[in-house]
Amino acid sequence: MTADASARALDAVARTRAGAELAAAEIELLVADFVAGRVPDYQMSAWLATVACRGLSRAETVALTRAYVTGGETLDFAASGRVVLDKHSTGGVGDTVSLVVVPLVAACGVAVAKMSGRGLGLTGGTIDKMESVRGLRLELDTDEVYRMVDQVGMVITGQSASLTPGDKATYALRDVTGTVDSLPLIAASIVSKKIAVGAHGVLFDVKTGAGALIPDQDRALELAHLMVGVATGAGLRCRAVLTDMSQPLGYAVGNALEVHEALDALRGREIPGLTGLCRTIAALMLRSADPGLSAAEAERKVDDALAAGAGYEQFLRWAVAQGAEPGVLEEPGGLPTADNQVRVVADREGYVSEVDPRAIGTAAMNVGAGRLVKGGPLDHSAGVVLRRRVGDRVSAGEPLAVIHHRDGVEPPVDLVRGAFRVSESAPAEPPVVLKII
Amino acid sequence: MTADASARALDAVARTRAGAELAAAEIELLVADFVAGRVPDYQMSAWLATVACRGLSRAETVALTRAYVTGGETLDFAASGRVVLDKHSTGGVGDTVSLVVVPLVAACGVAVAKMSGRGLGLTGGTIDKMESVRGLRLELDTDEVYRMVDQVGMVITGQSASLTPGDKATYALRDVTGTVDSLPLIAASIVSKKIAVGAHGVLFDVKTGAGALIPDQDRALELAHLMVGVATGAGLRCRAVLTDMSQPLGYAVGNALEVHEALDALRGREIPGLTGLCRTIAALMLRSADPGLSAAEAERKVDDALAAGAGYEQFLRWAVAQGAEPGVLEEPGGLPTADNQVRVVADREGYVSEVDPRAIGTAAMNVGAGRLVKGGPLDHSAGVVLRRRVGDRVSAGEPLAVIHHRDGVEPPVDLVRGAFRVSESAPAEPPVVLKII
Repeated sequence: MTADASARALDAVARTRAGAELAAAEIELLVADFVAGRVPDYQMSAWLATVACRGLSRAETVALTRAYVTGGETLDFAASGRVVLDKHSTGGVGDTVSLVVVPLVAACGVAVAKMSGRGLGLTGGTIDKMESVRGLRLELDTDEVYRMVDQVGMVITGQSASLTPGDKATYALRDVTGTVDSLPLIAASIVSKKIAVGAHGVLFDVKTGAGALIPDQDRALELAHLMVGVATGAGLRCRAVLTDMSQPLGYAVGNALEVHEALDALRGREIPGLTGLCRTIAALMLRSADPGLSAAEAERKVDDALAAGAGYEQFLRWAVAQGAEPGVLEEPGGLPTADNQVRVVADREGYVSEVDPRAIGTAAMNVGAGRLVKGGPLDHSAGVVLRRRVGDRVSAGEPLAVIHHRDGVEPPVDLVRGAFRVSESAPAEPPVVLKII
Repeated sequence: MTADASARALDAVARTRAGAELAAAEIELLVADFVAGRVPDYQMSAWLATVACRGLSRAETVALTRAYVTGGETLDFAASGRVVLDKHSTGGVGDTVSLVVVPLVAACGVAVAKMSGRGLGLTGGTIDKMESVRGLRLELDTDEVYRMVDQVGMVITGQSASLTPGDKATYALRDVTGTVDSLPLIAASIVSKKIAVGAHGVLFDVKTGAGALIPDQDRALELAHLMVGVATGAGLRCRAVLTDMSQPLGYAVGNALEVHEALDALRGREIPGLTGLCRTIAALMLRSADPGLSAAEAERKVDDALAAGAGYEQFLRWAVAQGAEPGVLEEPGGLPTADNQVRVVADREGYVSEVDPRAIGTAAMNVGAGRLVKGGPLDHSAGVVLRRRVGDRVSAGEPLAVIHHRDGVEPPVDLVRGAFRVSESAPAEPPVVLKII
């Protein structure tokens, strides 16, 4: 802590509160001062709380994004000689899209570098899900990342700790000061990591609805536009989709259960909600890589790959290249399975009109599929598999969902049953893709 | 820091940001958790920054005020058998009102207990000013405070460190996080100290204009209403005056210089700006103590006391009772005097239309009358004495002000001259008392 840096931080708090716009250099200095310990936590948290109230201009958000990247490692795929894309989801319950889309796009000849985090709370993390696969290595170093992209056309790995030091320090503080829920802070955090990853383009999947980080659709749309604007300004090729998270995506919620479902989808099984979204996202990514491609051409490429199982073959090649035991994904029992499977049945007949994603996510977390605190243990086999989604018909005594849990864990039957609403008449089926940006 | 307290603090940040009203018990617990170290600085500063953006309801401000008092010492003048009043100014340049009003009201038979702070920045503190008087003891313990009120009818002392622990901890954090400028936080801080001091009533002098903490008149009025509302709700008899700080009050700016001016005013010299305001405030205080008194009766009592020099005699009695050397205030040179006096003269003739209080306050601070950092040294003899105020006529070469400074200190002549604007026509004289609440 130094007097100059502190005085600048105080000034930033007062001016942001007063609605003044900070210069890019001021924001970059503030973050640098914080990372270097010249601005103490309590001053940075005052500024973050003020930003959470007052917002930031587009220019300030761009400056904050750049500041987060400064001083950290950045990757560069120029040497690979091809377009490399990234994909990011704001997180949802049963969000298996990355596990399908990354190999599907790679199978269509476009390289994808996906660096993921772990899950916390109701939303799972791609790394946790992939850890269900025996032998798979998910902490690659930079050279390994380059090699995977060059040789296999895709990589999925945990994010290096040396990327975006400014975001890392700031996010840790936001997490303990009630300042996570701020669109410019969310956008800067996400986009800074995308810049550091060094891909040429990125597809943002912004979830909205009860099970999303941002339930309100207008705010989620605002975040989508903000991220696209900031990332485009940083030179990335960007598309975004605003997608529904008013019910879990697909059927499976839980780590190995979702890997299993993703493999099914890649083998051509139509999973309601999941398959359609993956087709849309994959086609958008193909068009980002090749702007000359028409929408129809892109969709046909994706459908051909699905029909041929090319994405499935790509997934297997990738998994083995990254350390998985050959055959583990094709054997029965190759993925961890739970000791017990408990059916939750409907007590009346009718149409499912609601499946609360928070209740299903909480139930999955309670049986060990998710964690409440960072670093907490997971049971990769545990979770909930829906048997009915919104719009499906059910008779009394028929299953609504199946809870997968290990011995000694109480299955939250009432919680899962309470997540379902069954009505007399068929509800309108909610579209999954609400908007393409 | 405990997990429960932290979770509560995060919840408070999010809900205050969302515009929800916290329950009184929640606010009291938050402050108690912070004082006890169960909530870390960075969480409390996030909440304070959020409050500075979003404000607090009246009920929340009352709860925060009460929370500040909790666990600290509180005084109680019930045993004295008489009404005891307090007086508070939000601070201004050359604000000598307390030094005049406290003895004046005491001379009229109403006891006054005034606990003051030290000055910081442009605004002086009553304790700093009184320290100009040789021998005067200004760190009394509680028993001495009671004894002074009983035996001399007044006391002026520094504030005990054991009052309002919640305010003390919070203020220290606000000071270093850019969250001083918030009406509910200011009101809670001030009123909590008045509650702890235990007087039966309090007069708030809320300054507005360029030299005030809150320059904007509407916001200053809002603060006055807020403090009166919160203090009245706590059972205090309250009045407030909204007063002009668009130029320094009276002539003198500097510690011993202001004591000298206050003694002059008490001896019946009419000091423009100062004397009128003191008469208004003193009369309001007499009517707080005796609600049956009419405005005319109260004013006559004050005028009689001024004419008879009763306030001056009271000041001398009080100073000696509190340790001053007898006679020190009546001897020439009894108060510290500066080595040098430099006149700043007008370079054209006309009417003074503006005297910038910030420039005069800064000049006084620069020669040693004020401090930039807490605990910094003061030169009690130094300062600036105006020779002209707004509306006064001046000829070229006639003095506008005199800078008092010690050897080795450069007198800021240009700064002082630049504070004055001289115009062709006589300006409207600004009223000092803008509103009585």
